Amino acid sequence: MPDTKSPRFSPRGDKEAIESGLAFQPKFDADGLIPAIVTAADSDEVLMFAWMNADALSLTIETGLAHFWSRSRRALWKKGEESGNLLSVTEMRTDCDQDVLWLRVNVEGDGLACHTGRRSCFYRAVPVGGAPSAALRLVPAEDPAAH
Amino acid sequence: MPDTKSPRFSPRGDKEAIESGLAFQPKFDADGLIPAIVTAADSDEVLMFAWMNADALSLTIETGLAHFWSRSRRALWKKGEESGNLLSVTEMRTDCDQDVLWLRVNVEGDGLACHTGRRSCFYRAVPVGGAPSAALRLVPAEDPAAH
Repeated sequence: MPDTKSPRFSPRGDKEAIESGLAFQPKFDADGLIPAIVTAADSDEVLMFAWMNADALSLTIETGLAHFWSRSRRALWKKGEESGNLLSVTEMRTDCDQDVLWLRVNVEGDGLACHTGRRSCFYRAVPVGGAPSAALRLVPAEDPAAH
Repeated sequence: MPDTKSPRFSPRGDKEAIESGLAFQPKFDADGLIPAIVTAADSDEVLMFAWMNADALSLTIETGLAHFWSRSRRALWKKGEESGNLLSVTEMRTDCDQDVLWLRVNVEGDGLACHTGRRSCFYRAVPVGGAPSAALRLVPAEDPAAH
């Protein structure tokens, strides 16, 4: 486990430092979490979305394998630890506000990032262009890999 | 503005309905918000990340232009309304849990999605593979369009 005694990340600076600086000053929300977007390294298709606490972020940086915080299980979560579908990070980025992370990954094992057994969690499309109503139906989307 | 009297989205069902069904049952968090990942329609590079409330989601579906909820300004936000960099949605997807949205967009105007004047908000990389510390420095990333 990471050393929690010394500061692992820079404290938040002013707007200029956050947007234009090179000190990593990740913003964790009131629950101590930062959102992480995960895309496939070879195509940038969005595979999944999850949350990291400071421990998960530290472990991801240290090991190069994506770790998250499971809000439902309230536990640190090494993605793929049970399934073998580990996420090997090829690049991590942060955004202008340093309050979001983007991970490009190679999915190990069977290459399935979604717990439903699919490559991506985003396997249904929301029709755009009509009036939203409770009758709105999702449309099964083609495998994003075929995009 | 959307009609707020009739239900605009299905109520949340059970796990099976949410994961495998075709009824759109978006989950809004305790603040009434759902996260939205925005990628470029032509490359899937991640451009930005923002939040939608039910009104923003309804307007996005109705108009095909991305609307968000600005948490800092506490206001509905038609992205690009002032800059001209409107986000025209070519596809919207939701994930297995229906608690995240993914929008593929064409950026109108100057093609810049970030308020800093860049194409993408994710213009800095976080080095992976070392020990996290307050001394960690971000690396300016190549224009994602060149990826």
